[in-house]
Amino acid sequence: MDEFELIRRYFDRAEQRPDIALGIGDDGAVITPGPGLQQVAVIDTLVEGVHFPEGYNPADIGYRVVAVNLSDIAAMGARPSWMTLALSLPQTDPDWLESFSEGLLAAATEFDVVLVGGDTTRAPQVVATVQVVGEIEAGRAIRRSGAMPGDTVYVTGTLGDAAAGLHGLQTGQPVRQLVDRFARPSARVSWGRSLVGVASAAIDVSDGFYGDLGKLLRASGVGAEIDLACLPLSESLAANFAVDEQRRFAMSGGDDYELCFTASAALPDPGILRVTAVGTVTGNPEIVVRLGDEVVPYTDRGYLHFG
Amino acid sequence: MDEFELIRRYFDRAEQRPDIALGIGDDGAVITPGPGLQQVAVIDTLVEGVHFPEGYNPADIGYRVVAVNLSDIAAMGARPSWMTLALSLPQTDPDWLESFSEGLLAAATEFDVVLVGGDTTRAPQVVATVQVVGEIEAGRAIRRSGAMPGDTVYVTGTLGDAAAGLHGLQTGQPVRQLVDRFARPSARVSWGRSLVGVASAAIDVSDGFYGDLGKLLRASGVGAEIDLACLPLSESLAANFAVDEQRRFAMSGGDDYELCFTASAALPDPGILRVTAVGTVTGNPEIVVRLGDEVVPYTDRGYLHFG
Repeated sequence: MDEFELIRRYFDRAEQRPDIALGIGDDGAVITPGPGLQQVAVIDTLVEGVHFPEGYNPADIGYRVVAVNLSDIAAMGARPSWMTLALSLPQTDPDWLESFSEGLLAAATEFDVVLVGGDTTRAPQVVATVQVVGEIEAGRAIRRSGAMPGDTVYVTGTLGDAAAGLHGLQTGQPVRQLVDRFARPSARVSWGRSLVGVASAAIDVSDGFYGDLGKLLRASGVGAEIDLACLPLSESLAANFAVDEQRRFAMSGGDDYELCFTASAALPDPGILRVTAVGTVTGNPEIVVRLGDEVVPYTDRGYLHFG
Repeated sequence: MDEFELIRRYFDRAEQRPDIALGIGDDGAVITPGPGLQQVAVIDTLVEGVHFPEGYNPADIGYRVVAVNLSDIAAMGARPSWMTLALSLPQTDPDWLESFSEGLLAAATEFDVVLVGGDTTRAPQVVATVQVVGEIEAGRAIRRSGAMPGDTVYVTGTLGDAAAGLHGLQTGQPVRQLVDRFARPSARVSWGRSLVGVASAAIDVSDGFYGDLGKLLRASGVGAEIDLACLPLSESLAANFAVDEQRRFAMSGGDDYELCFTASAALPDPGILRVTAVGTVTGNPEIVVRLGDEVVPYTDRGYLHFG
């Protein structure tokens, strides 16, 4: 199977959007940006042996490489529009490609983002890079740099599940609900959209809440006080781990892909946007971690790829 | 050095363009598309051990990964605007990064394309993926599918130099001018721009002239007759190889990044656009290769990554 047959069979789908003038198959794709809009561009790579083990379910890799990008789109408050894929593989295995493309296109369909082109190459291990471009009303993108002292720090959903799920896989004691949170992360695109004009700053939690909050705060030139007792935990996490482990996963576990954001104004209908207030932005440029009235020393900076 | 320091030190440059509202450093970049324009998106990956040998000059890798993308932009007739980079590395070597970023940003400066964001990850070998987005007047992109019987087949510049340069490197008899053509391929962006409204179809020569012409013809549902005696050859290629080798490099050698295009109308000032007519588009969907009046059997299909 050559690269054209590979693309035609697994990735070229008929569905298009009116803004996609030319999709897969030429030297480039042609996209018509809408009037009065800006675009948001993000790119993320998953490497076999680094981000997932050899032999990992290809459908989950395909879904995941789209979801991690959409999470960045969500953290900007944008709507995803189109994406490109660069896929390096050791060989062409039709079963692997069938599964990978199924997962990738499932995420694309779920979030209404069109695959418009790509590049396939050979490499010693699987490397999947997706770039997503989204749209946002001009001037409305939510940056990391807008947090102000006095703002409340919020997170969406629950923290620590994905890391606990991965831990369960690695120790041979997987908990289904937690593993699912790792395998098929939910990009918070609709929640991100509802934060436009509400959040003063936002970031997605990919490397761990503590580390990613730190990036937001540094970009804003501020600090925060966080209360460990406020961290939102799932029933599955609470039922399967001791309290210290729950908090460690919630503070430092990566791969949750929830949104961490700051806001001074009232939030939209909490029935639509599931969020928890976990602390307050301060003028002191550091993170103070409390458990009720007590300050808890905490130094983890989250996962850094070249730390 | 963590990934933030890596990005700040080697890739974050102050220069911006008015359409780049937010560049490197947030969850995504924010771009303002212009009125009445379409955008062209391309993506290409270079893998160590596949596209370049281990220990290859990092500056040339950086330049090359931009140039190969710009070549696709050129083949669409578009103007490059912005790009993202996904870079996987075994470790952070400051000398390597200094050199790679120098080459990458040299190409960016030369072609006025801004690096707006990226992703750095760890991998067993170097994998560099660049996506470039360019602009084109709405409806004017040059597709592969527009060639008509009777059109003339043209190529820009000279063919076979890059493959001959690589051959020289591999056999220990490098010829400087030919090696340079491999190491720092020229993306024909300005020539591509001058072909808008002139070329009926275009493709860039990355996998070899014969194979890439075949892709253009298949996309157009036509064929062509090509005259080997017309292929444009450089003085360096002619001086260092036998005639048969020259023609083999010119027909099937990859990495030239010239443009192959078809046109029925007169071409712009040949002083600006250096092109050579090499054949004629036919209604018979195959490539007939001639040497003067004689038909020469030829079956090479160019380099396919998963052939």
